[in-house]
Amino acid sequence: MAQNIYDDPDFFRGYSTLPRQVLGLAGAPEWPAIERLMPALAGKRVIDLGCGFGWVSRWMREQGAASVLGIDLSENMLRRASADTVDAAIAYRIADLETLDLPKAAFDFAYSALTFHYIANFTRLMQVIHCALTPGAGFVFTIEHPIFMAAAHPGWMADVDGRKIWPVNGYAMEGERRTSWFAEGVIKYHRTMATTLNAVIGAGFVIERLDEFAPSDRQIAEMPELAEERERPMLLLVRARRDP
Amino acid sequence: MAQNIYDDPDFFRGYSTLPRQVLGLAGAPEWPAIERLMPALAGKRVIDLGCGFGWVSRWMREQGAASVLGIDLSENMLRRASADTVDAAIAYRIADLETLDLPKAAFDFAYSALTFHYIANFTRLMQVIHCALTPGAGFVFTIEHPIFMAAAHPGWMADVDGRKIWPVNGYAMEGERRTSWFAEGVIKYHRTMATTLNAVIGAGFVIERLDEFAPSDRQIAEMPELAEERERPMLLLVRARRDP
Repeated sequence: MAQNIYDDPDFFRGYSTLPRQVLGLAGAPEWPAIERLMPALAGKRVIDLGCGFGWVSRWMREQGAASVLGIDLSENMLRRASADTVDAAIAYRIADLETLDLPKAAFDFAYSALTFHYIANFTRLMQVIHCALTPGAGFVFTIEHPIFMAAAHPGWMADVDGRKIWPVNGYAMEGERRTSWFAEGVIKYHRTMATTLNAVIGAGFVIERLDEFAPSDRQIAEMPELAEERERPMLLLVRARRDP
Repeated sequence: MAQNIYDDPDFFRGYSTLPRQVLGLAGAPEWPAIERLMPALAGKRVIDLGCGFGWVSRWMREQGAASVLGIDLSENMLRRASADTVDAAIAYRIADLETLDLPKAAFDFAYSALTFHYIANFTRLMQVIHCALTPGAGFVFTIEHPIFMAAAHPGWMADVDGRKIWPVNGYAMEGERRTSWFAEGVIKYHRTMATTLNAVIGAGFVIERLDEFAPSDRQIAEMPELAEERERPMLLLVRARRDP
């Protein structure tokens, strides 16, 4: 079973203060890049894997999705998602993506944001999502970038010129990474870029487009601290399609 | 025009001493990983882009390829390739991949090793290769990994535990990188993983498999200095297929 850090009270209190949780999509600098990857949603049955507070579940309905099923491991997250949602076509359900079962060919689009790096058995999950989608269905996800996750001590250092550098080591050594993020011992799973994308391809998806989020000039003008995101990618964004 | 560092006498002298140039494929630790990506070659008309001394051109003929056209920018490289090749079905031709033109649908497989990071206009080159291949044809290439290339000062550093780390910065800032490698001012072009793969996809290829070369236990037992290649990837290996 995946670690349920989101139901740790301290973690949840801290997490809830993040701009992206207070402001929603406007508080997530990568959202414009995600939006560029999103297909037309009108009439589509959508699944949102790791839906959290439901910001994107609601956005997808605003885009015309016929229905959205939001899945999350955390009661805290789904309680808040339900409280913020007044829409009979959005359902939220508690489930662990490590052991998730889904009906076959029941969805026309799958979305997941910043959830898959908590999953140990990524290959299984890709197969489950593939089976749950209709032929030709789209699939967009974001995940912490392996450059961001790999190192034993991930954090800014400086080079001989005093410029920020991000350390990479252990890149080929996949598996558990424990970090402190609002709580001690948050468990994530590092996989190389190749392992991640090969699992997507191996499940029967075609990779359509990748993005390694970096802020625009305008975003940096508005929020200068974002500039460091150009030094190393923190997020990998993937758009794939189920083979027809 | 691409920089022709391979015809610089000092560079060429140093380069010629590399294990992979003295020993051929057995001197390239990534070769077993490349070989796993290679399709059956029997009867195929093959192009080898940046063929160097022709080690892989000759290997592809041994695998049954009907013909191989080896392309390289360097007279030095092709003089040596020709001297080492006794095979009327292998032709070598001097050309700059930045401005290369190729006949349409003339090849059944394209290969390139460690050449594309010297190319400024990668998008154009992907389109040229796509047009030169028959529908469904395979395409395997290796390129310096963006993690290896990005930083202003690429070279090992140490973390607080004294463990090797590889610095990353400027990852999203694509373009020229000047390094010293047997000569001063060797020019390479850094592109993000996303830019590289999106250019391949955008030209009309399907990505089939990726590898970020890391040595096996056996390779490290035989050559302990290879262990550092597990800390950060130096090479990206891509297998793609032209859309049918």
